[in-house]
Amino acid sequence: MEHRIKKLEAILLNDRFAAHNEIRLVSVSVGEAVAEMLVSEKHLNGVDIIQGGALFTLADFAFAAASNSHGRIAVASNASITFFKGISSGKLTAHARELNSGRTIAHYQVDIEDEEGNKIALFNGTAFRKGDY
Amino acid sequence: MEHRIKKLEAILLNDRFAAHNEIRLVSVSVGEAVAEMLVSEKHLNGVDIIQGGALFTLADFAFAAASNSHGRIAVASNASITFFKGISSGKLTAHARELNSGRTIAHYQVDIEDEEGNKIALFNGTAFRKGDY
Amino acid sequence: MEHRIKKLEAILLNDRFAAHNEIRLVSVSVGEAVAEMLVSEKHLNGVDIIQGGALFTLADFAFAAASNSHGRIAVASNASITFFKGISSGKLTAHARELNSGRTIAHYQVDIEDEEGNKIALFNGTAFRKGDY
Amino acid sequence: MEHRIKKLEAILLNDRFAAHNEIRLVSVSVGEAVAEMLVSEKHLNGVDIIQGGALFTLADFAFAAASNSHGRIAVASNASITFFKGISSGKLTAHARELNSGRTIAHYQVDIEDEEGNKIALFNGTAFRKGDY
Repeated sequence: MEHRIKKLEAILLNDRFAAHNEIRLVSVSVGEAVAEMLVSEKHLNGVDIIQGGALFTLADFAFAAASNSHGRIAVASNASITFFKGISSGKLTAHARELNSGRTIAHYQVDIEDEEGNKIALFNGTAFRKGDY
Repeated sequence: MEHRIKKLEAILLNDRFAAHNEIRLVSVSVGEAVAEMLVSEKHLNGVDIIQGGALFTLADFAFAAASNSHGRIAVASNASITFFKGISSGKLTAHARELNSGRTIAHYQVDIEDEEGNKIALFNGTAFRKGDY
Repeated sequence: MEHRIKKLEAILLNDRFAAHNEIRLVSVSVGEAVAEMLVSEKHLNGVDIIQGGALFTLADFAFAAASNSHGRIAVASNASITFFKGISSGKLTAHARELNSGRTIAHYQVDIEDEEGNKIALFNGTAFRKGDY
Repeated sequence: MEHRIKKLEAILLNDRFAAHNEIRLVSVSVGEAVAEMLVSEKHLNGVDIIQGGALFTLADFAFAAASNSHGRIAVASNASITFFKGISSGKLTAHARELNSGRTIAHYQVDIEDEEGNKIALFNGTAFRKGDY
């Protein structure tokens, strides 16, 4: 189990898109994960608020961590995101939780909040499981 | 009209998250836009395929271009994405089209394809309109 | 306020699709609503489990109640639903809660559970507001 | 193959929720299906337009037909729907098409149109495959 989490952490550290966008893993356990991002100018869109893709990437990274936490590679099938509030600075935290986990399909919810606990975005993702890692 | 598209192009050029991730606008007209991304190592996830957030960001940028093309600032309310195929190199093109446009709400579909015309992902986004830009 | 809730209840009682499918309102207050459905043969699909449309309708009715609870007509823009468990009998309860409410756009989550508290489905809906009722 | 379609048609005819709501199958072939509904008073919501659940059910039935057309039972994992236009009478047609089909997961799009070809709603659904039927 601990060995499995170590292997998973190595996979997540190898996520170059997350690293390039300064998203980092805070914690991962079975069915759950937390990631964070310090919003800076590189995350902003043309009207100076955080780009939807930056929020999606933060949530997707936490989702990947949680959905791969059972010792098998899980691949995203689809996801949706709802944007509540446009922000342009500060630290964001994404908390992924497993809603349901079948043999091949599993569903996750990710809540993104700012430092004051304001809801920034809500992400729901579906993953399907492939072989062991 | 041409003046409006110029203003919109300036807004899109100011999207630092898109620029940081090497996404560029190919064309924009009323209700329609095309963006592209040359997939490189920085776009990959921990298992060496393109990160879902990179695909979302490409689609979201085309969606932002199309949804802002009517001369009013449009903000994303929510979006969903379905992933068809994991790729790790090559040029991807996102084509955004308006499905429906009301006074305050508008809906867009974005198709992402690779150079051979394979479907890579499908994005649907809802925007709501604010003041003029 | 109480007067407004009375008017809303009259609108909801006039929902003939909900009535035809034996969905009933349990309670409604500002930003929140509960509806229920006793699953019977008429709600089943071709492989003898509850039809996705029956679950969606139950959730949508609770969403309509919650999203119209502010005294203005709210119309659904889009919604998504995730199915956790196929059931074929028993009472289902849908609980709608407001996630976020702006001037024109508001987002709701609806949880459907069975009598033992098992999660059956999760619904997310976006509404936009029109004039007063 | 023809035998398989016959078996599928029997399953679809057994969908009691579709029948109760006057939704009927027009055609089904591998990866594609058409269903229709004549909108009447029983399909209306409290403000006299078609209930979102009625549109979802129509789309979901066409999606079920298309996703089960490969000879294996397919179960819906999740779906989303976008509403374009509120109508209150006339015949609606739902056309389901397969976007992508893997070994265990498949994605479908369903377009609902009225008799004049106006877009009424767009549905996207994900199914996962179980055993043969």
